[in-house]
Amino acid sequence: MKIEAIDLFYISLPKITRTADGTQDSLVVRVRTDNGLEGWGECDASPLVSMAAYVMPMSHSNIININEALLGETIDSPEDVIRLRNKAGEYGLDIQQLDHAVAGADIAMWDVLGKHLGESVWKLIGHEASYKKLPYASVLFGDNPAETRTIAESIVNRDFRAAKFGWGPMGRGSLADDIALVQAARDGLGPDAKLMVDAGVIWGDNVEIAYERAVAFAELGVTWLEEPLRTEEVGAYKALSDNVRANGVKIGIAGGEGADYFRAADDMMTNAGLDFVQIDVGRIGGITEAKRVADRAHELGIQYVNHTFKSHLSVAASIHVFAGYEEFDLIEYPAGDSPLILGLTAPSGIFRDSDGFVQASDAHGLGVQVNPGAISEYQRMVKIEIDGEVLFESAQP
Amino acid sequence: MKIEAIDLFYISLPKITRTADGTQDSLVVRVRTDNGLEGWGECDASPLVSMAAYVMPMSHSNIININEALLGETIDSPEDVIRLRNKAGEYGLDIQQLDHAVAGADIAMWDVLGKHLGESVWKLIGHEASYKKLPYASVLFGDNPAETRTIAESIVNRDFRAAKFGWGPMGRGSLADDIALVQAARDGLGPDAKLMVDAGVIWGDNVEIAYERAVAFAELGVTWLEEPLRTEEVGAYKALSDNVRANGVKIGIAGGEGADYFRAADDMMTNAGLDFVQIDVGRIGGITEAKRVADRAHELGIQYVNHTFKSHLSVAASIHVFAGYEEFDLIEYPAGDSPLILGLTAPSGIFRDSDGFVQASDAHGLGVQVNPGAISEYQRMVKIEIDGEVLFESAQP
Repeated sequence: MKIEAIDLFYISLPKITRTADGTQDSLVVRVRTDNGLEGWGECDASPLVSMAAYVMPMSHSNIININEALLGETIDSPEDVIRLRNKAGEYGLDIQQLDHAVAGADIAMWDVLGKHLGESVWKLIGHEASYKKLPYASVLFGDNPAETRTIAESIVNRDFRAAKFGWGPMGRGSLADDIALVQAARDGLGPDAKLMVDAGVIWGDNVEIAYERAVAFAELGVTWLEEPLRTEEVGAYKALSDNVRANGVKIGIAGGEGADYFRAADDMMTNAGLDFVQIDVGRIGGITEAKRVADRAHELGIQYVNHTFKSHLSVAASIHVFAGYEEFDLIEYPAGDSPLILGLTAPSGIFRDSDGFVQASDAHGLGVQVNPGAISEYQRMVKIEIDGEVLFESAQP
Repeated sequence: MKIEAIDLFYISLPKITRTADGTQDSLVVRVRTDNGLEGWGECDASPLVSMAAYVMPMSHSNIININEALLGETIDSPEDVIRLRNKAGEYGLDIQQLDHAVAGADIAMWDVLGKHLGESVWKLIGHEASYKKLPYASVLFGDNPAETRTIAESIVNRDFRAAKFGWGPMGRGSLADDIALVQAARDGLGPDAKLMVDAGVIWGDNVEIAYERAVAFAELGVTWLEEPLRTEEVGAYKALSDNVRANGVKIGIAGGEGADYFRAADDMMTNAGLDFVQIDVGRIGGITEAKRVADRAHELGIQYVNHTFKSHLSVAASIHVFAGYEEFDLIEYPAGDSPLILGLTAPSGIFRDSDGFVQASDAHGLGVQVNPGAISEYQRMVKIEIDGEVLFESAQP
């Protein structure tokens, strides 16, 4: 089949708040083929900047847009998807936004190929099984310990057995303040639930402060301390994880969501001493590249975890990537209440079974359906003109 | 003084050809302050994608546009520029295009600060001297050896003492074809001129093919083999440079233009075994970040070289970055004839002295002036609307 159209949908809540909540908007990508099929993908990225990467005029032979690379191309096998993903990468070699933007098209190509071949994505990308994963509710800290405890209790009430708290006041006050936040999360969750902490790169390159927190949080049974440092501080990460191991501190160091392409992730896996590498399929250029990271993590004995703070379209894309690795047993699971994000794939989704686990579907493609009504409801209509001519204009789904 | 306006100018030749010639368009950034000064910068990046990074709506607290980070801010010292560059990086933590886009504003901020304080940029960023550099004419290979030889002869006729040939047919034929191209360049230049070869990432991750070329080109007196492999193939680079050294092959391995941020460059310097690290100030986020790389290269004993394939505004920004390092004695110098690029700073520029060297200017700021007439002549007028409201509209300079 041939790729006939690539449709870009910028959806957004009416009001965006200045919090680290990625479920307030999204760029959804639809790939349509000449045999009447369609596949869907989602980027975790600025929608407008990413849209521009699909339509912008050529600058030279290494700055050519994504549409130009993909439209009219043939897609009949997994090798085709990989070839086309790489073609977009070559056309856009010098477009920095390329990876964030092409992620949506890559995911949509795997989805439509699965529908075409009657196969699930996890099989197409080479997995032999789809193992159950334990979803952890991914939420932001409350503004104080009391609010954080209330959030934790609500998570337990929703039958989650694991949760990650991040951002908010973490790292903005004293050590005691940080401990109080994590203690509140632990108190609300109870002693048995898994608890992870996401520091949101708050300590920059300060290994000492990060280590102090790692020690304190380990005592509260925290599975991992995520992004204590900025992504690019690879040397500082190494010093931190070396310290943690040398002193027998029982906590993992996690990071990697800032990795925009395979080498950035591999650099962190090889040189930062990570225990968990967290990859956002909607940033790192899609399922094709995320799978490379999962394979590499498996080789290195590092646990691959998805980073996902978007809709169930992204949750689905994420779980296919590492479905076949039994040892990668945790999955980040957005647990907020953004109606845009909850509505996008309703009533389909990656839902928990009676034991509280989730699993990549055996359905054809990704196994979730996009609800065009949700797009219509939340779509922002973009129009880009150059020299008076329309370069791009949003259309209804 | 306060930043009152950030103006974005997308300029382009009327017709863009599909060659690796970066001088066909540009994004020029002007920063205006409340005391009537203005500074100028240039991005080496897709203009439209980068413009979007200045104006796009907020997605969440880590996707906030560059204008929001900089407009209204105070800028009175080098520390202010660094603070503001970092602020834009924090606001845009999850905008992949951030570094390419903010480069223009960063350069413009250094320029306007220099005018404000009556100081050259190289002094403001901490250099104690401005050493002369030998410019190498940076050109593309001809379509065949004969054309390549003609180009080489024209370079000698223009009194260049060094030249770099890149892209074109290099790596697309046999070993003998590649050698014939380089031999033609050497024949045209004569035995004394420095000759460098840019393979334009053509051999991907194939160390063997790249090594074969390195050996052959070394016999033709090639100073360095640039980008034999894709930027992200750090392990392959290391294998190649280890081989070259172990066998006493007299050629340097160069790369780094694909580094979009400091850590990507540091990864290559630390792990790829580079002899020359080539940094584009218009991609890596501006003078602030490029200077960090130059300092680090100095520490590691790797030669820093600029990557520049834009106007003399970029040449100027580039040379300030490493002006004070005497051992970094080569500068890439665009030698094409794009009227847009030649006109942008006319009649000012970074020109060769009677010995054929160039030098960072002692003038206030960058030391080149932008010609608004050239912008008017080549400007493409962009208009971006969201939900019927104008988000951005190009204006005359």
